[in-house]
Parts: sequence; C-alpha cells; structure tokens
Amino acid sequence: MFRRYDHLTTTCESREPITTTGCSQSVLKGEEVSSKFADRIARVQPSAIRELLKYGDDPAITSFGGGYPDPSLFPVAELQQVFADVLANEGATALQYTASVGLPGLRAQIAKRMSNQGAATDADDVLVLQGAQQGLDLVAKLLINPGDVIVTENPTFLGALIAFNPCQPEYAAVDMDSEGMDVDALEATLRSTENVKFIYVIPDFQNPTGVTLSLERRRRLIELANEYDVLILEDSPYRELRFEGQQLPTLRSLDTENRVIHLGSFSKILAPGVRLGWVSAAPEILDKLGLLKLAADTQSSTLNMTATTRFLESFDIDAHIERARAVYRAKRDLMLSSMAEHFPAEVAVTTPEGGLFTWVTFPEGFDAEAFMAEHALPEAGVAYVPGGSFFPAEQRSNYARFSYSGQSDEEMVDALTRLGGILREHI
Amino acid sequence: MFRRYDHLTTTCESREPITTTGCSQSVLKGEEVSSKFADRIARVQPSAIRELLKYGDDPAITSFGGGYPDPSLFPVAELQQVFADVLANEGATALQYTASVGLPGLRAQIAKRMSNQGAATDADDVLVLQGAQQGLDLVAKLLINPGDVIVTENPTFLGALIAFNPCQPEYAAVDMDSEGMDVDALEATLRSTENVKFIYVIPDFQNPTGVTLSLERRRRLIELANEYDVLILEDSPYRELRFEGQQLPTLRSLDTENRVIHLGSFSKILAPGVRLGWVSAAPEILDKLGLLKLAADTQSSTLNMTATTRFLESFDIDAHIERARAVYRAKRDLMLSSMAEHFPAEVAVTTPEGGLFTWVTFPEGFDAEAFMAEHALPEAGVAYVPGGSFFPAEQRSNYARFSYSGQSDEEMVDALTRLGGILREHI
Repeated sequence: MFRRYDHLTTTCESREPITTTGCSQSVLKGEEVSSKFADRIARVQPSAIRELLKYGDDPAITSFGGGYPDPSLFPVAELQQVFADVLANEGATALQYTASVGLPGLRAQIAKRMSNQGAATDADDVLVLQGAQQGLDLVAKLLINPGDVIVTENPTFLGALIAFNPCQPEYAAVDMDSEGMDVDALEATLRSTENVKFIYVIPDFQNPTGVTLSLERRRRLIELANEYDVLILEDSPYRELRFEGQQLPTLRSLDTENRVIHLGSFSKILAPGVRLGWVSAAPEILDKLGLLKLAADTQSSTLNMTATTRFLESFDIDAHIERARAVYRAKRDLMLSSMAEHFPAEVAVTTPEGGLFTWVTFPEGFDAEAFMAEHALPEAGVAYVPGGSFFPAEQRSNYARFSYSGQSDEEMVDALTRLGGILREHI
Repeated sequence: MFRRYDHLTTTCESREPITTTGCSQSVLKGEEVSSKFADRIARVQPSAIRELLKYGDDPAITSFGGGYPDPSLFPVAELQQVFADVLANEGATALQYTASVGLPGLRAQIAKRMSNQGAATDADDVLVLQGAQQGLDLVAKLLINPGDVIVTENPTFLGALIAFNPCQPEYAAVDMDSEGMDVDALEATLRSTENVKFIYVIPDFQNPTGVTLSLERRRRLIELANEYDVLILEDSPYRELRFEGQQLPTLRSLDTENRVIHLGSFSKILAPGVRLGWVSAAPEILDKLGLLKLAADTQSSTLNMTATTRFLESFDIDAHIERARAVYRAKRDLMLSSMAEHFPAEVAVTTPEGGLFTWVTFPEGFDAEAFMAEHALPEAGVAYVPGGSFFPAEQRSNYARFSYSGQSDEEMVDALTRLGGILREHI
C-alpha cells in the first residue's frame, strides 16, 4: 500500500547514494577518499532530518516529520508583485553582488521588528543570514574549539546539533519540563562543567517539544549566564507564531551584559524558499560573524533581500502573521484532539502555545523509530520524527516529534486515526 | 575631490564598526568577548575584498577593485519572466523548503553543461551551492585539519584564503608564469611537503592574474596529484567567459582517478544576485559535502533554484554568454590599450583570454597599497585591489588586480588616464 519506507530500517547509512558515471574511473576507492577527511567529519553523519524531509514528496505517505510551514499561507501574490517590481525597476542592482552583511534596508526592517519586541536594535546590529541555520554554523565556528562545551536543552533541535558537530563540541544537555529548561539543573551543570562556551536555547515553542521557557526562567537564565560568564545563543524562528497566551520577552531584550546572540528567520513568517534569517549580537561578535559569513558564502541573495525589503515596506506582515497564527492554532487543536481521541491513553503530548510542533511521549520501552519503520509507515502510511536524535547525549527511544503545519485537515485526521489504531494494537 | 578614501590607511582594523544602541549595556568588554573566541578566529580578519567592495557604491570613485560582472549583461527581462511564471504557476512549491542537495532539475541542467564540457556528469554528481564560494568553505571543512597543507597558485584568490583560513591550514604557494602554475615547482613542493591535502587551482583566467593553465600543465597536474596521492580543487567561475583562444578541458574532464573536486558558478554567466553555484566530485566526497551543506544553511533558495532552472529550460544561456564574451573582450581590449597608452613603460600587465581581471606588475619596491591610499584614491579617484593579500605566504607589494568588468568605457578610459598620469609622476 505505501511505498519507499523499507530503506528506513538502515538509518546510519546515506539514503542518497550518489553514483558517478565515468567522466573518470573511480580508481580512488571509498576508503582511500575517506582517509583524507578531516577529523571533524567523523561527526558529520546523515541525520533523521534529511531522511524525513523526503516523505514530504511522497504522496502515499502522510508525513508529520518536516518542519515545513503551511504553503497555503505563503503570500504568493504579494511576493509575485514585489519580485516583478524589483526586477522591473531595480533589476540590475538586485541581481548584482552587495555587501556581505546584507542590504541596509533589510537590516533596518529587521532592527525595527526587534526593537518593537523590546530589544532596542539598530540596522548595524543586524547581520542578514542564509536562514537562521547559518547562524548556528557561524556561531559554532566563532566560539567552539574541539572539546568546548555547549549547554543545550534536552532534547534540542537536531539541525543545531548537525551545525555544531563539525566544530567538535561536547554537549551538556539539561532536562526540560513544561516551563522549558530546568534552571536549577542548568546551574548545577554550569557549576560542575568547565569550558562551557554558550547555552543554546529555543525559548519559544521549542523544537522539538513545543514548550515555552517561562518568564521567571528567562530571567534566571540571564542571571546564570552573567554569573558563570557564558554566552547565550537564542534561536527564535517560531517566536512570532504564538497563537495563545502572552508573548514573553526575548532573552536578547532581558540581556543585561550583551551576552545574548539572537537568531531570527523569515522562514516561518514569510517563506522558507527565500532563505533569509538574521543574527543580532554584541558588536564584537557581530563583526566576526560578518567576516565568517563573507568567507562562507559571500552574501545572501541580493534579489531575495531586495524583494523581502520591498515586501516589508509595502505589505503588512503582521496582518499576514496574524492569519498564520489562526491557521496554526486550528491545526494544533485538530492534531491534539485527534490524538486525544485516537491514541492510547498511555501516550502523552505537549500543548504548544505557538510554533509548529508537539512532542509525543510513548510509554517507557517503546521504540518510536522501530515502530515507524515496522508499523507506522507500512501499515498506516504515516511518518513522524523519532525523538532519539534530538537528544545530544543519551538518546531516548520513546519520543517523537509531530508537526501540525504541513497537512490538510482531512489528511491529518485520517492519518492520526490510522496511526492511533495501530498504536492501540501495540501499546 | 574624492570622498571616503582616508580610512584606507588603516587596513588591519574593521572598517565597519558595528555599534549597539543599548538594548543592553555592553558590560561585557571587547577583550572579554574576544577571549571567548575559538582559536580559528585568530585567522579571521577583515580582508581587502570587503574593503574594496565598498568603492563600488561610491559615485566619486572609479573602482577596478570588485569582481562584479557588468550589470548591463544581466538578462533582467528574461529573469523577470521566469520569476513571474514560477510564482504564478508553482509559487507555493518554489517558496517551500526542498532537498539540501538542490532541485533535481537544476542539478540535471548543470550536469548537462558539465557533460558538454567533457566531464560526463549525472544530476546525482552535482550539489547545488550558495555560489562557488560556499564550495571553498565546505571543501576546507571536509579535508583540512589544523596544520594540513593546501597547495595554491601564488598569488591566488583572496576569497579562497578567507574561506580556508578558519580550518587553520598551512599554505604552500607555487609561483606562476604566463602558462599558470609552475608544475616543476609544484612537483618539488609535493616531494618536500608532508600533509598536503589538496591543490587549489583556478585553471581558467585565474583570479587575480587572468592567466590560464596550459593543456600540458593541466595533464601534468593530474599526473602529479595521482603520483603524490592528493586531491585537486578546481575553481572555475570564469571558465565560460573565454573571448579568445581555444577552450581547454577542465581538470575534472582530465581526471583519471576521480581526484578533482570541481566548483562552478552562475554568478558570472547569469547573475551573482541569485547566489547559485555547484560542486561536482567523487560520490564519497559529494555525499559528505551534502551533509556539510545541510548543516551550514539547510539549502539554497528554492525560489532562485526554480527560476534558474526555468531560465535554463526556456532561454539560450549560451547565446547570452556569447554576448557577454564580446562585451568583456572589448572591455579588456580597452583596458589594456588604455594602460599601454597611459601607464609608465615600467608597468607590466597580463593579457587574459577570458574572465574579468588583469594583473598589474609595478617595479620592484613599489607599494601598490600605499600608493592607492596616498595617491590613486585622493588624486585620481581610482581604486584597485593591491596585490599583497593575494599571496598566501610572503606578501609582495608591487602588484595590483584590475577588473575591466564594472565600468562604462568612458569612465574606464578617464580613470586609467588619470591614474596613468599620477603613476608617471611616481615611477
């Protein structure tokens, strides 16, 4: 009934064998090539994210795996208009190189949004990035020597781990509860751990858990960073997608010693396909990140930066975000109610106040990855992200991340109904 | 008469002081912040490229510094059409995430172009990048442990050095002549140097010298790589801009043991502002580069990849390139004849058969950087790139890179006339 799930059973190998067709004979054998790789490459391995993104293209599978925003929310007509205007009126400039730090107009627009959120920010305090993901790569390059420690939430964003890993850090993962990272456990970690360079945290609707860091803990986190003299990397791509409860201040706005490096993104509030995000931080940090950006890819797309600037000048992105919030709230409600109705009572889920994900806890001993390969995919045609790889240190098998952003209502309910039936057979 | 040149005299500091305006007090002092930086950051310093790009925006300065292609060559109308079509007909898909390796259609188009150039290539042999610059960053990450040696041409592309530097390589720079890298000197270097990981070479219309590696030397380079068991990184962004002489085979097409990692770019044949390039290499290498790409920035812009694919499907890029070649040939001719007419006889220049640059050799003892700051900018309103920073090891002061791609004919002649007059006063 459902195709292409069988390869999921071998998760440690590449699922994209890239074959060459003989512009040259591959005389250099695979093991000879890999003997030339740098030491850091031992930590560069295929991840569950890359695997899971593929199910998004398979019509026979309903994937709750990707972090794809709902494409029906993309402001296609407005972007069509700004791209047409930009190419008609300033095409030669928009297709040329520009400064690696990003277009001044876009930096100003981002600074205005950050200022409105309580962190007074100038255009010069902003560096435009190729999505927030690039910020994870550049910050690790800036700060991490092999063996340095990054403190993370436990679990944390898999994409951050794969960005950090080439710099060969150690991880100290601090458990979370419904208010986010346990700050008492954090303090114990900071007290007992040498060489901590920064604390990586996703305060709003965390990926993968959907949990939000409480205000009290935000304040405590800043205090602890000051006390133990470490930096904070605040990753905030989902922040504006809050659909209930009160918006909390960013860590950057609570920062008292300019220790917070803040990452933002247009992927979830505009569209991922333009690949634009940003970082704001202390001037000494931002200056070096700008040099690393120049070295890494020269600059982000001038055309996309210009068009996004014009979009922000010409249209009301806040009204657009408001529409997105309503859609995601309804989708979250539908996912949670479907899970409550169809999943066994032993399965717990988080109730995110925003963002794209809920985190599913199966009973102890349940193997979410094996269950997906053996039952969810072949019997229900359903994919999710098994939770194990979100744990930086000791992987736990009885968790999964579900995104409610990528399916139609009917498809979501049907798939969760099918999955719930199969879960009931096995739990 | 000319503004904004005085800061050029202090080239070791950042020219973009980024100030913060008090979302927080900068209690953490600059030296405290920099004490947290990773060891690799000692090698991440502001470069002449970043400085010189700024003169491109100053109407009072004629800059021969940037590697900007001529914007009048950008196919603006055609791109306007494909962006409009893509957003109208496949907007939701083109604005969504896609596979990190790049769109299959674009990979196929690139593979076809590479196959047509003699290196049989499948779509799966191609990884789409954020410009060829990203390939430099990813290949260094893949191969270089601190202290490993990269063999380069002497001089070489400054952008490559800044991409490689964070991986803390050593450089062995091999001198060039009018046929490119001296392969006898290369052999001596390979024989006497341990831990060489790869040879970095720009075979066609090299940046900065404009020199092309001869066919005989290309063959010898491949033999030496095989004999000494090292890889070759072939950086080929200018290759298709040959405007005279016979096109020579790529190193990738001459490769007998799959040792050549080939970088290409749309920046010079389409437009830099779309930020698209590619790498093709042995499968084991490409697979790891794909993982590093995913970690670094998730993917290149889906929208730009889709529109570029449609452009390649709908329009004749070869006819477009043919027009560009004619323009650059005329510009090169004008630059060389103007230099011959107005520069002192003691100044030598290369005669590139393609690409964007000529390399100027001043007499021994001439300091091209000091001359630019003290005379060329204030007295002639002319900028170029002083050659020193293109030398990986021992910098030489009496060289400069001039690009003939970015000015109108009249502005070019006027500026070179002014510069020649001042050079005659000092040489």
